Amino acid sequence: MSASIAQLIESRISANHFDTGRDVSEADISALVRLATLAPSAYNFQNWKFVAVRTAEARERLKAVCFGQQKVVDAPVTFIICGVLGAHRSLQRTLQPSVEAGIVSQAALENWVAMAAATHTDNPQLQRDEAFRSASLAAMTLMLAAEGMGLVTGAISGFDAAGIATAFGLAATEVPVILVTTGYAAPGNWAQKLRRPVEEVLDFA
Amino acid sequence: MSASIAQLIESRISANHFDTGRDVSEADISALVRLATLAPSAYNFQNWKFVAVRTAEARERLKAVCFGQQKVVDAPVTFIICGVLGAHRSLQRTLQPSVEAGIVSQAALENWVAMAAATHTDNPQLQRDEAFRSASLAAMTLMLAAEGMGLVTGAISGFDAAGIATAFGLAATEVPVILVTTGYAAPGNWAQKLRRPVEEVLDFA
Repeated sequence: MSASIAQLIESRISANHFDTGRDVSEADISALVRLATLAPSAYNFQNWKFVAVRTAEARERLKAVCFGQQKVVDAPVTFIICGVLGAHRSLQRTLQPSVEAGIVSQAALENWVAMAAATHTDNPQLQRDEAFRSASLAAMTLMLAAEGMGLVTGAISGFDAAGIATAFGLAATEVPVILVTTGYAAPGNWAQKLRRPVEEVLDFA
Repeated sequence: MSASIAQLIESRISANHFDTGRDVSEADISALVRLATLAPSAYNFQNWKFVAVRTAEARERLKAVCFGQQKVVDAPVTFIICGVLGAHRSLQRTLQPSVEAGIVSQAALENWVAMAAATHTDNPQLQRDEAFRSASLAAMTLMLAAEGMGLVTGAISGFDAAGIATAFGLAATEVPVILVTTGYAAPGNWAQKLRRPVEEVLDFA
């Protein structure tokens, strides 16, 4: 029997300690990224890019641009999850397969492409917001999918974004939003940190 | 038997049509938000705020500030999910319960509070990035938790943020990041839109 989604969410921790002797296969990495891309995005932009950092050399390269955090070397894979700026420019191409499959009408496609161009062109803050939103939605999907595979993850937002871009040859439109270290848990991880009471963060209207 | 997380992710669609005759209880809404707050955030900032828009009057008020989208009136609840700016200022208070519970050491707390202050103070872009990241991670957790309860959701990022802030009395630090309409599905929803092939969005390093 599978764990329920509620159980996975309840038991998820942010891992710092990974079993250095257990790898995550290329097939599992691809499966995780495919699931992550099923996250929603505005206009179905799919404005994300994933770099799976796996080799010993690449892990050291990553460590150097995220303040020496050892977990990116210990974990078998760390995903650099980027949001992509200027996604409105490729929206027609991104949506075309859904039109051909009869899921989205040609009229809807044309409407969305026009609306996206009208709002995103010359609006760098909206493009950045959109990059952060889409990449984060995908990252959370990836983390929960990983839990379902018996893996643990640790999200990292403390890194040198420009350093990562240089070290991994990212395009100028690819903004590193979050890193997700992924692997099997070693002993010594923190318990889940306590959360504020729901009443403090929820209003009804 | 529960659906696996992979099955939930595979079957999730962005809903536009909701059963107007079925409500979501206040208890279910609180349960969804509690699960959403188990998402990770930098330093465990928990820099999010949720407004559950439920009454007929409040739904019309919301519709007026999100370009007339009918689904926020049809769905029994729409969550306005905000990220909170300046979260470093309340980090000590946010982390204190985890210190008292023995999960985080006093030394770690002091270190994080100092690091967060050093990087976030006078850095409005980082504060905004952090708001979008945390709120989006929480939103995705909420959407998948809702799927697990047999609900459907629709994420909306096309809205008048300033209009929402005014209409719902948000603080200046509370930035609306994403709306999540939530309820039971009515017929007529789109199938899941097609995604780009994994090879197009994933690099190995």
